Amino acid sequence: MRYEIRLSGEGGQGIVLAGIILAEAAIEDGKNVVQTQAYGPESRGGATKSEVIISDEEIDYPKATRLDLLLALTQEACDKHRHDLKEGGILVADASRVLTLPQGGWVVYRLPLLETAREKVGRGVAANIVALGAIAALAKPVSREALEKAVGRRAPRGTEALNLKALDAGYELADSLRQTA
Amino acid sequence: MRYEIRLSGEGGQGIVLAGIILAEAAIEDGKNVVQTQAYGPESRGGATKSEVIISDEEIDYPKATRLDLLLALTQEACDKHRHDLKEGGILVADASRVLTLPQGGWVVYRLPLLETAREKVGRGVAANIVALGAIAALAKPVSREALEKAVGRRAPRGTEALNLKALDAGYELADSLRQTA
Repeated sequence: MRYEIRLSGEGGQGIVLAGIILAEAAIEDGKNVVQTQAYGPESRGGATKSEVIISDEEIDYPKATRLDLLLALTQEACDKHRHDLKEGGILVADASRVLTLPQGGWVVYRLPLLETAREKVGRGVAANIVALGAIAALAKPVSREALEKAVGRRAPRGTEALNLKALDAGYELADSLRQTA
Repeated sequence: MRYEIRLSGEGGQGIVLAGIILAEAAIEDGKNVVQTQAYGPESRGGATKSEVIISDEEIDYPKATRLDLLLALTQEACDKHRHDLKEGGILVADASRVLTLPQGGWVVYRLPLLETAREKVGRGVAANIVALGAIAALAKPVSREALEKAVGRRAPRGTEALNLKALDAGYELADSLRQTA
């Protein structure tokens, strides 16, 4: 079992931190993980994509090539990365920043991640953690317990409670979706 | 030009953060960078290795295979990773934790990184940043200006000054070595 996730957005959205938290949660679950940031010269504000490959086996090839799940926090990120999403894969896109959804054989969730971070958590920058909660609830690449532990450990000091709240809000967002679907 | 760096040690030594800072400094310098953490189930306390590949060109293959530079903060890390260090490559090892140096065609620097972090900075956990300063002074994979900027941006809030001090201490350590050599 190899599960490939790419988190994408723009500099300053906390894509690197989200990738590390997801990776450390998977470790907590006893998996093997490779977690990669690729930067180009355009990404001065921080990496705009982060990949997490989770496997029960040792991971020989560390590059994601057939994504099981893509998070896109901006339209540009969505347009750029959707081609690597495999048939039947899951796309989680921010509702306010991704207005044009790609057509294809994917399961698409367009969710108010940024809005939830602003309104439920009081800080738009927590959208990365809201997204992790939603992803975990929808696709279960990691356990909730492990994810909470990783958020508590990696959140900048003093922001642990706020980020755990953001995580909860992400789970709720995905759950509410299931109830209305 | 492709330059491969592996930072290695044990969980809790800040290997992940050091890799991110190094990657972001290289971006600041206008390079392309891929930065990877590989975790195994044994690494609950955090990743024990982090790779940074820096290039003027786009990076197709994200795995380090012939290291130009290896940082080893523990004996175990040194023993495990030295085989990937290329002929003529640089090994930077902590003096208190790496007692048995490998024999081979490498340039070896055994430096008191942990001791410097404790004595000059007052915190042993800053050894990762002392190491970055020493690496940057010895091999110049990134500019000092870019590294200072990345440390200031990525250091946990409230620890910026302390980490910049650790970086300075690392540069001094490498410089003092050159003077006595």
